[in-house]
Amino acid sequence: MSNVEFKQLSPADFFYRNRELAGFDTPAKSLYTAFREIVENSFDGAEIGGINPDVFVSIKQKSDDVYTIFISDNGIGIPSKKVPGALAKLLFGGKYVERQSRGHFGLGASMTVLYSQITTNLPTRVLSCIKGSEFIDEYHLMIDIQRNEPIIRFHQQIPNKKNWHGVAVEVNIEGDYSRAHQKILEYIKSTALVAPYADISYIDPYGVFYKFDKVIDDVPKLGEAVLPHPTGIDTEKMLRLIRVARQRTMAKFLQANFQRIGEKTAESFLKFVKIKMDKDPTQLEHDEIVRLVQGMNTFEDFLAPETKCLSPIGEEVLIAGIKKELQPDFVTAVTRKPSAYQGHPFVVEVAFAYGGNIIEKTAEPMLFRYANRIPLLYDQYADVSAKVVRSFGWKMYKVSDNSPLAVITHIASTKVPYRTAGKESIADREELEREIRLAMQVCARKLRIHLSRIEREERQQKRTSIFEKYLPYIAKFATRLSGKSEMPPLNFISKIKPEHDEEEK
Amino acid sequence: MSNVEFKQLSPADFFYRNRELAGFDTPAKSLYTAFREIVENSFDGAEIGGINPDVFVSIKQKSDDVYTIFISDNGIGIPSKKVPGALAKLLFGGKYVERQSRGHFGLGASMTVLYSQITTNLPTRVLSCIKGSEFIDEYHLMIDIQRNEPIIRFHQQIPNKKNWHGVAVEVNIEGDYSRAHQKILEYIKSTALVAPYADISYIDPYGVFYKFDKVIDDVPKLGEAVLPHPTGIDTEKMLRLIRVARQRTMAKFLQANFQRIGEKTAESFLKFVKIKMDKDPTQLEHDEIVRLVQGMNTFEDFLAPETKCLSPIGEEVLIAGIKKELQPDFVTAVTRKPSAYQGHPFVVEVAFAYGGNIIEKTAEPMLFRYANRIPLLYDQYADVSAKVVRSFGWKMYKVSDNSPLAVITHIASTKVPYRTAGKESIADREELEREIRLAMQVCARKLRIHLSRIEREERQQKRTSIFEKYLPYIAKFATRLSGKSEMPPLNFISKIKPEHDEEEK
Repeated sequence: MSNVEFKQLSPADFFYRNRELAGFDTPAKSLYTAFREIVENSFDGAEIGGINPDVFVSIKQKSDDVYTIFISDNGIGIPSKKVPGALAKLLFGGKYVERQSRGHFGLGASMTVLYSQITTNLPTRVLSCIKGSEFIDEYHLMIDIQRNEPIIRFHQQIPNKKNWHGVAVEVNIEGDYSRAHQKILEYIKSTALVAPYADISYIDPYGVFYKFDKVIDDVPKLGEAVLPHPTGIDTEKMLRLIRVARQRTMAKFLQANFQRIGEKTAESFLKFVKIKMDKDPTQLEHDEIVRLVQGMNTFEDFLAPETKCLSPIGEEVLIAGIKKELQPDFVTAVTRKPSAYQGHPFVVEVAFAYGGNIIEKTAEPMLFRYANRIPLLYDQYADVSAKVVRSFGWKMYKVSDNSPLAVITHIASTKVPYRTAGKESIADREELEREIRLAMQVCARKLRIHLSRIEREERQQKRTSIFEKYLPYIAKFATRLSGKSEMPPLNFISKIKPEHDEEEK
Repeated sequence: MSNVEFKQLSPADFFYRNRELAGFDTPAKSLYTAFREIVENSFDGAEIGGINPDVFVSIKQKSDDVYTIFISDNGIGIPSKKVPGALAKLLFGGKYVERQSRGHFGLGASMTVLYSQITTNLPTRVLSCIKGSEFIDEYHLMIDIQRNEPIIRFHQQIPNKKNWHGVAVEVNIEGDYSRAHQKILEYIKSTALVAPYADISYIDPYGVFYKFDKVIDDVPKLGEAVLPHPTGIDTEKMLRLIRVARQRTMAKFLQANFQRIGEKTAESFLKFVKIKMDKDPTQLEHDEIVRLVQGMNTFEDFLAPETKCLSPIGEEVLIAGIKKELQPDFVTAVTRKPSAYQGHPFVVEVAFAYGGNIIEKTAEPMLFRYANRIPLLYDQYADVSAKVVRSFGWKMYKVSDNSPLAVITHIASTKVPYRTAGKESIADREELEREIRLAMQVCARKLRIHLSRIEREERQQKRTSIFEKYLPYIAKFATRLSGKSEMPPLNFISKIKPEHDEEEK
């Protein structure tokens, strides 16, 4: 017999042992992940309040391999009592609702505090102030990892003299900036590309100051939290809804707890699953619950999921951002209509940028991936967008290898199907793949027209240059032929345009 | 101001909401994941007891989209009181030690129970019996997801008349077998390939019976649990060790709590971090702990990590399995020496199989990936082995495109750097990548010799056939020339071998 010792882990202990699952693996990657997690929280904190984000962030070298990240935002702040939980307790957060946000897993901030603590043994300093508050709360926090509880090392309230609101965090972590530098810069630039409504300042460890100013004023209208859509419901969710429901008939229960179910839909659905309209939800039998849930996943007459919980970037903002950051010769963008997978609504946006001095000629098009406005920089191979780019029929659209083409994809959803809690790549769900492909086809058709025009202009250029080469001889000859000694001026040549040319088929 | 509601999730609730992180996404993938998780537990349960695994598993269709998976093994069993926790509580398990095992995250079995419950509202039936016990325990289990606690719906003890030991599980889950079939078969075949010491029986929903008999008797010697190696230690781990330490001097503390630290190493290391030999570990200051931990990660005179905690497959077993399952013309395998990343020891094994009727000619070599004896079938693009295969200099080794080549990689480690809790692909840690590349070079050199020989034989074959074509004419001519009317027999031709030929450079 073998001696197997059984043990229960707290969520903090699980992610401490498996921190690479949340993006904390090598020192370089960990520094990058810590940086992006706190930047994303700052953006969420501002946008949720309808505020143009103004984010200041800096990284300083504290010792050989320890860096201090400092960030300060102008968001809505975290209420005093919630600060220790929000930053020093895993799986604790304010984002567990059906609404699009950058944060997703309730892991980012607290994993950063945890990683700081296990590599430097130092607490994380947090300042927070909600709008209109007279005091700013200052906390120094660590985590009791085995119990998943915050440890408050220090707490004070300081007068809020300048009417500030937002969150500021100072955290020390072991890292390798020289290896993270490239990705961190790429991350900020990519963030600026889709957030031309934000001010972002960054000072790197070498003292270099980067500033991205906002070029438009509109803050994206944040998605609203919505009721769940019946498709994709499971028995657990159903039992939880029934447990707290105050409605005493199934017809009312369905209308009150699900989106897109009105009186008529409730009636026809209940007929479909053979449950009475006036049945008390708390009195449902085991079999009825199973029928109810399976019915929700197979009934075909529900309306499509609501999309007011989504906040796509929009074609105009996307194009504005791309023009600013990539300066292409040609750009086109499309925001698709909302779609859904397993009851989760999503919108796909794709943009193509071609030519200019910044976009490189690479074997495959350069790919910029975004999910809920977050740039995804790692694990590109594993991503659904990369899969579509690889298998796309580029030749059909006159795009040859080594073209100066950048493809930008954005997926906005209440539930992005990330492959890992580190939010680096998106799984290839069929519904997503199809939408990305369709969006790329729309952009590719517009690009083909642009490329045909270039081709035509090049042909004409070539023809003109042939004329230009021979015309002087012809002119000379004609002059002689006419017996004149002086040739008339030839400057009309550059104005010649062919009267008709092949049009794109 | 926005109304943000803060909430704490239990581990069960977190993985319920993000079950795709543990491999449960589409119905097909979920069925596959449930299947492999319980199969892996059965293998671990037998091997940990030094028993040749004898695993019976079946999948039956219960209704349109609900399937019943039944498995029974001959492992060491789970003690009665631990059964509910082991199967119906997340992050609870017996594998949280420094030893190689298939299970890793304490998630697989309980996620299967959870997924069963949320899709079918049914409890999971478990039978368990430890060796020599008079009773078999039968449990029907569900999970209180919000509290992460087992719910025991039924429990009884039945007499163990046939002296059985092991675990049997019957679980009902929503799935899509027609789409999972291919992967499930591939999974069993791939498992058999590296476990020629196991009996595996499988009955699929169509009633087809698959049987993989063991061809060798030796059960792999399972790795032993070991003390942690100092490299890769963090302050959390150090503080936990100090909290429970009974040693009252640093010199003794280090020797008792870390592998590969003897008196001499302890002395020179403590000099390196400037801490006194007789310092009481519980009296260490904040700065000393930081120095101690950073020193452990930078001190260069520690011995390499112990490897008795590892259990590679071995070249012979690997070759036996490959010959049995792939029937190639040529096979070679190499087990590299142990290496380590961040204090975690690992061993890389690579085999090449070439030719035969089973291995397909594909643009890139077919890749079979394993980690701790588990076949990895999804997310190949994201895997470190695929990365090495893609960038390998095949031409140098005479391997052309569309060759009938299969590459088998196995990584054995106490901590495999999986990208996700679904255990589908391995991150590209530098140390791993290097070892895989080196192992592949060893195999590639042997393959080149084999391919050169084939090339040579083909050349000779070609030359021989030229001789064969012209010799009869020459013979006829020579016969006439000599004035004879009858030609001597020509059957010596096939025995001709060229006396020297170009050797492989």
